Amino acid sequence: EQTVNLAEIEALGRAALDQNAHEYYASGANDEVTLRDNREGFRRLKLRPRMLVDVSNVDTRTTLLGLPVQTPIAIAPSAFHGLAHADAELGTARGAASMGTVMTLSTFSNTPIEAVAKQASTGFWFQLYLYRQREISAEVVQRAEAAGARALVLTVDAPFLGRREPNERNRFALPPHLGVPNAGTRQELAGIETDMGSQLVNYFQGLVDKTVTWNDLAWLRGVTSLPIVLKGILTAEDAELAAQHGCHVWVSNHGGRQLDTAVSAIDALPEVVDAVAGRSEVYLDGGVTRGTDVLKALALGAQGVFLGRSALWGLAAGGEAGVTRTLHLLNEELRLAMALCGKVSVGELGRDLIRN
Amino acid sequence: EQTVNLAEIEALGRAALDQNAHEYYASGANDEVTLRDNREGFRRLKLRPRMLVDVSNVDTRTTLLGLPVQTPIAIAPSAFHGLAHADAELGTARGAASMGTVMTLSTFSNTPIEAVAKQASTGFWFQLYLYRQREISAEVVQRAEAAGARALVLTVDAPFLGRREPNERNRFALPPHLGVPNAGTRQELAGIETDMGSQLVNYFQGLVDKTVTWNDLAWLRGVTSLPIVLKGILTAEDAELAAQHGCHVWVSNHGGRQLDTAVSAIDALPEVVDAVAGRSEVYLDGGVTRGTDVLKALALGAQGVFLGRSALWGLAAGGEAGVTRTLHLLNEELRLAMALCGKVSVGELGRDLIRN
Amino acid sequence: EQTVNLAEIEALGRAALDQNAHEYYASGANDEVTLRDNREGFRRLKLRPRMLVDVSNVDTRTTLLGLPVQTPIAIAPSAFHGLAHADAELGTARGAASMGTVMTLSTFSNTPIEAVAKQASTGFWFQLYLYRQREISAEVVQRAEAAGARALVLTVDAPFLGRREPNERNRFALPPHLGVPNAGTRQELAGIETDMGSQLVNYFQGLVDKTVTWNDLAWLRGVTSLPIVLKGILTAEDAELAAQHGCHVWVSNHGGRQLDTAVSAIDALPEVVDAVAGRSEVYLDGGVTRGTDVLKALALGAQGVFLGRSALWGLAAGGEAGVTRTLHLLNEELRLAMALCGKVSVGELGRDLIRN
Amino acid sequence: EQTVNLAEIEALGRAALDQNAHEYYASGANDEVTLRDNREGFRRLKLRPRMLVDVSNVDTRTTLLGLPVQTPIAIAPSAFHGLAHADAELGTARGAASMGTVMTLSTFSNTPIEAVAKQASTGFWFQLYLYRQREISAEVVQRAEAAGARALVLTVDAPFLGRREPNERNRFALPPHLGVPNAGTRQELAGIETDMGSQLVNYFQGLVDKTVTWNDLAWLRGVTSLPIVLKGILTAEDAELAAQHGCHVWVSNHGGRQLDTAVSAIDALPEVVDAVAGRSEVYLDGGVTRGTDVLKALALGAQGVFLGRSALWGLAAGGEAGVTRTLHLLNEELRLAMALCGKVSVGELGRDLIRN
Ligand SMILES: Cc1cc2nc3c(=O)[nH]c(=O)nc-3n(C[C@H](O)[C@H](O)[C@H](O)COP(=O)(O)O)c2cc1C
Ligand SMILES: Cc1cc2nc3c(=O)[nH]c(=O)nc-3n(C[C@H](O)[C@H](O)[C@H](O)COP(=O)(O)O)c2cc1C
Ligand SMILES: Cc1cc2nc3c(=O)[nH]c(=O)nc-3n(C[C@H](O)[C@H](O)[C@H](O)COP(=O)(O)O)c2cc1C
Ligand SMILES: Cc1cc2nc3c(=O)[nH]c(=O)nc-3n(C[C@H](O)[C@H](O)[C@H](O)COP(=O)(O)O)c2cc1C
Repeated sequence: EQTVNLAEIEALGRAALDQNAHEYYASGANDEVTLRDNREGFRRLKLRPRMLVDVSNVDTRTTLLGLPVQTPIAIAPSAFHGLAHADAELGTARGAASMGTVMTLSTFSNTPIEAVAKQASTGFWFQLYLYRQREISAEVVQRAEAAGARALVLTVDAPFLGRREPNERNRFALPPHLGVPNAGTRQELAGIETDMGSQLVNYFQGLVDKTVTWNDLAWLRGVTSLPIVLKGILTAEDAELAAQHGCHVWVSNHGGRQLDTAVSAIDALPEVVDAVAGRSEVYLDGGVTRGTDVLKALALGAQGVFLGRSALWGLAAGGEAGVTRTLHLLNEELRLAMALCGKVSVGELGRDLIRN
Repeated sequence: EQTVNLAEIEALGRAALDQNAHEYYASGANDEVTLRDNREGFRRLKLRPRMLVDVSNVDTRTTLLGLPVQTPIAIAPSAFHGLAHADAELGTARGAASMGTVMTLSTFSNTPIEAVAKQASTGFWFQLYLYRQREISAEVVQRAEAAGARALVLTVDAPFLGRREPNERNRFALPPHLGVPNAGTRQELAGIETDMGSQLVNYFQGLVDKTVTWNDLAWLRGVTSLPIVLKGILTAEDAELAAQHGCHVWVSNHGGRQLDTAVSAIDALPEVVDAVAGRSEVYLDGGVTRGTDVLKALALGAQGVFLGRSALWGLAAGGEAGVTRTLHLLNEELRLAMALCGKVSVGELGRDLIRN
Repeated sequence: EQTVNLAEIEALGRAALDQNAHEYYASGANDEVTLRDNREGFRRLKLRPRMLVDVSNVDTRTTLLGLPVQTPIAIAPSAFHGLAHADAELGTARGAASMGTVMTLSTFSNTPIEAVAKQASTGFWFQLYLYRQREISAEVVQRAEAAGARALVLTVDAPFLGRREPNERNRFALPPHLGVPNAGTRQELAGIETDMGSQLVNYFQGLVDKTVTWNDLAWLRGVTSLPIVLKGILTAEDAELAAQHGCHVWVSNHGGRQLDTAVSAIDALPEVVDAVAGRSEVYLDGGVTRGTDVLKALALGAQGVFLGRSALWGLAAGGEAGVTRTLHLLNEELRLAMALCGKVSVGELGRDLIRN
Repeated sequence: EQTVNLAEIEALGRAALDQNAHEYYASGANDEVTLRDNREGFRRLKLRPRMLVDVSNVDTRTTLLGLPVQTPIAIAPSAFHGLAHADAELGTARGAASMGTVMTLSTFSNTPIEAVAKQASTGFWFQLYLYRQREISAEVVQRAEAAGARALVLTVDAPFLGRREPNERNRFALPPHLGVPNAGTRQELAGIETDMGSQLVNYFQGLVDKTVTWNDLAWLRGVTSLPIVLKGILTAEDAELAAQHGCHVWVSNHGGRQLDTAVSAIDALPEVVDAVAGRSEVYLDGGVTRGTDVLKALALGAQGVFLGRSALWGLAAGGEAGVTRTLHLLNEELRLAMALCGKVSVGELGRDLIRN
């Protein structure tokens, strides 16, 4: 039986997970105000479709940092795909590749970069947390670049992890058979005290550098020639700084998992696009579950959108096939929404599509 | 027992339908945001009634494209009235005629144009989907004109059908005893693969021309002398183009069945009316279930409003009598609302009736 | 056991009524949007209280058309108090008098004007519907004046009765033991066909004049020397006309019983007050159930507020004592709200109390 | 088992109380519109976090009237801590002290000032109701000053107590084992008629001076040299007067317990801060339950925020340890929120953090 929309896949995906994994994937920070607002933000925006346009050929293709992709919908980095499915990140990578799009691999994947890279036939991006021990970060960046990563996504909204309270309450922990091979050993993880709160938080707090500033981008430039995308920008001020530093901008509030009551992603997008003023590419993630969400983000100036949980629910529901189905359904929704808006290419999507 | 409002008729109508038909009539696209917003849009608008006016004679009569009607409330085109009642479009046509108003017959009716035309003593309009095979469309248009249609309503918001997910999930199909005699044969329909998704969508996708543009209006002018109404306009830009092309404008989002999160009909109306600036008539459909809805649309500049589902519920609840009751109740609500607003003719309804 | 607020009295009052009476008192027109919005309108307004004022003596006294009253809270006209309590309008009049305030007696009272007048020791107003047979109206007006009425309240928002659908559905009818002695006989009423819809609507439709305009005020001036209050004004335009015609203005949507989706009373008040610009007194009714509601109406320019259903619930809950308790509780809430806003007299209440 | 957020502590605290105490702590005035709006006001404000700032050392320290504190979160005055826990105000004081912050002791504490003062090692403030018998107030002020109070908090929003209806309905009374040693005797209290309404209201009404005005501040200055904080200011006008009188300003609506539908605390803050224009310190209480609430208040110009119920739930849940846990959790949430906003000291928090 074919699923009809992402909500159905989400239901299947949630049902396939145990409580530990489900809480880890589903939860947002604190009262989950931002988690909900990411989705409501899209719903609040109303579309102004245009008629009597030849829409016999709607083309969803675009480029992400020059790389041709079949769809502006790509995969956001998320940790621990092994919680969702035995194929873990390999399943996600194959799903993305089969739809001709890019996956962003998390530093905290359960599968080594090199193995994922082999499946990512369309190309992949690598997400980085800067470690206190810079040599670890340098090594992981160089491994990613060597493996063929097309961009380095530096996550800037997580000097500390947000408080996802179910994980604190029930002491989220990675099951013993899963490791974090890119940047640490299973032994390190096992050593983390889990008597209190989330194991991940404790682990993360120990490794990640909280001192990183705009000046550290120079160090990163020194160890890689890849384009740098700053993930987690929500203001015009930071967007301006990003552009000045030659970085691309990924508008995100980490799926509502970091700072609760932060502005929703789609509400933050316009000021970021205006500030960047074409100097860099702008992306968005957070709450994307419908083709019209993608269309609205593109209309407001995003070059691409990325799926966090939606991809995870797909992976949990059906491994690679689930990820493919998710991307396929969403891209078909986008294609249909474009046709019904009288637009045949992503380049034609502009702000006049959105009602003020 | 007399029904007291359209909600009661709707309940009776829904109860009279099997699941296949009910889902087809009731559903909107995707999350049904626009379906709901059509109705909420009316509720949000607050009225400013005027007092101490002689309202002993409230006249709801008006004209639609010059044709005198007893009420500004007419019937929107909808496919497959045979799902609602054995009398199918004949019942609807008789109901409209008995109230002195116009019915718009869908290309996808279960009853041939000519048979419906005979019942439509007040006059009828014909709704057109332009087919890839233009000769089919030309023929149907000429049949409609010959049968006495007063206007040609070109539906411009459906180059593809929107995704009404219940229909996809449960593979909506037309029961074997119903055909689409205006524009195809039952055999064609039977041949449509229904293993996946809605039969209608597959059928429609095969027939309807997705390349239609403003330029094609010239072709249509070539095959008919009827006034042309463009159904599905939601923006000032398209309204301007419509007026330039000598067409009338039907503000509609197809009852929330096409592009989900499209602007609600009543919210789109003012900018369309302003753009048209009197050059063409403007109509509206979407979510009309109360006399005050009609009054608000007229106050904001519509020449008439059209009932989609409301008419179908009436037909399902009681055939011709149900349609008549629906139109009658709604027109009496309009008449009362006009009286309570201090207005005795539809020409007096203006924007000052609506609170900003 | 003492009731603590009007909500408790309302619960007792509702419980004391049979379905016929309860539906008559409780219902609003159609979807009851305005009925609810009357109350929500007050809740939306936020107060800006002032501190460090000597509030040891808070005085709620004011005048209504020059008549001194102990409280700006008075009683709106409502038909058929006999449905609530055996004492009918006598109970209401005594309750109002005991609190030193004014009752407005409805044309459709179950008790004759003269009997009510005897109980109304503080003074009473008389509400008028203009009848087709003007001599009936002239007679009733002269009886009211002779009985000591202090003002004539001409209801201008009801050329026809609004559609309170429960009353239509269940054919509201006055029980046989109750009459309408001011303006008709029980026999007339019994003669009304009640096979369809509300008996009251049919009765009313037959009697009341729907042709009344601003010009008819001259006729009214001719038969009475009482001040005239126009009840049911909701716009600046009509307020201006009222003032020009030397009338006072009662902002009301008839408790949401006439035109559904009409603007809420408190939202309409400011534009009316501005238009009148001090030439006439302005009153308000609709949704008043809290002392802060009264305070907000006064702060926005009303000279007094009137209770419709709140008084009826009191009467149903406990006859005269219930009415007294209702007025007392509400006035104590007002007094406390004034103190907590730093205001000691109603004259001090101004717009700066309301946050924009 | 560790509690994860204040909601969990609140649930434990509520469960530990009998109905009399629970209703006293939990209730707000009338319909509790302001009680709820205090919390919703925070939720409505969306944050604009900044990235790539070195946040390895986030410092929540600040000063309150020059007194160094570890956190801008302090304790608001509330009556009758003995209802929550046997340690009563001693527990609260120790909790505050253990977190390096200030407690404000209510006039109506169950524990004498001097005993509380001994536990308040970081410092304490004393809250004053001005009594009709000024010598009682003078004495209590001098006792507070002698005991080491750092400020006098004059509550200006309670010339009368607001109507917390559950307390009226169920005749809230202080249990016999608890007294009000600062300003009266148990005997006085026992003497209060509790047959009707809340014992506290009756007691309070008898003692507190309702004539107090800005001029009385001179008297207060005469009996104490402590800084004076006016608690309960909600408007720019009163803030201006406070600053002119050399007083500090505590924005508060008394936790929604006084004037219902008064503006929420956080919505009132900006106009107060603007009016004061740096001449005095500004504080806020009302609805603070999350670190982001604290951060928003500080960003909008508050020098510190105070906990009313949150502290009481902590005390009820676990005595001193519960208060400490409450303050600790909230301060850690603040610290994390600051880090995630790219701010390392409270001085850096400004209005640009809040989205308009
Ligand atoms: C379970 C989970 C794990 C995540 N792990 C990471 C991560 O390792 N690195 C990162 O930059 N973002 C991570 N994110 C954030 C996502 O990249 C993305 O910003 C977010 O999920 C988008 O919101 P959405 O889930 O509503 O699509 C994670 C999100 C989730 C739900
Ligand atoms: C069951 C159904 C079938 C419809 N079929 C057609 C159609 O064949 N052609 C068309 O132009 N519009 C069609 N519509 C759209 C209606 O003409 C109209 O725009 C819409 O129903 C108005 O919204 P309402 O249902 O809220 O009144 C259909 C609508 C419904 C509900
Ligand atoms: C049961 C009932 C009967 C009423 N009858 C009359 C009437 O006879 N004449 C009139 O002018 N208004 C009448 N009204 C309207 C009231 O005067 C008043 O405008 C309305 O009740 C105010 O709203 P509230 O009920 O929310 O206070 C009636 C209202 C109710 C609820
Ligand atoms: C149970 C209780 C008792 C209170 N007693 C006093 C008091 O004695 N004096 C005073 O100034 N404020 C008093 N307050 C108000 C608090 O100081 C504070 O303004 C309010 O609780 C803040 O709102 P919150 O409870 O949402 O934090 C009391 C509040 C509560 C809940």
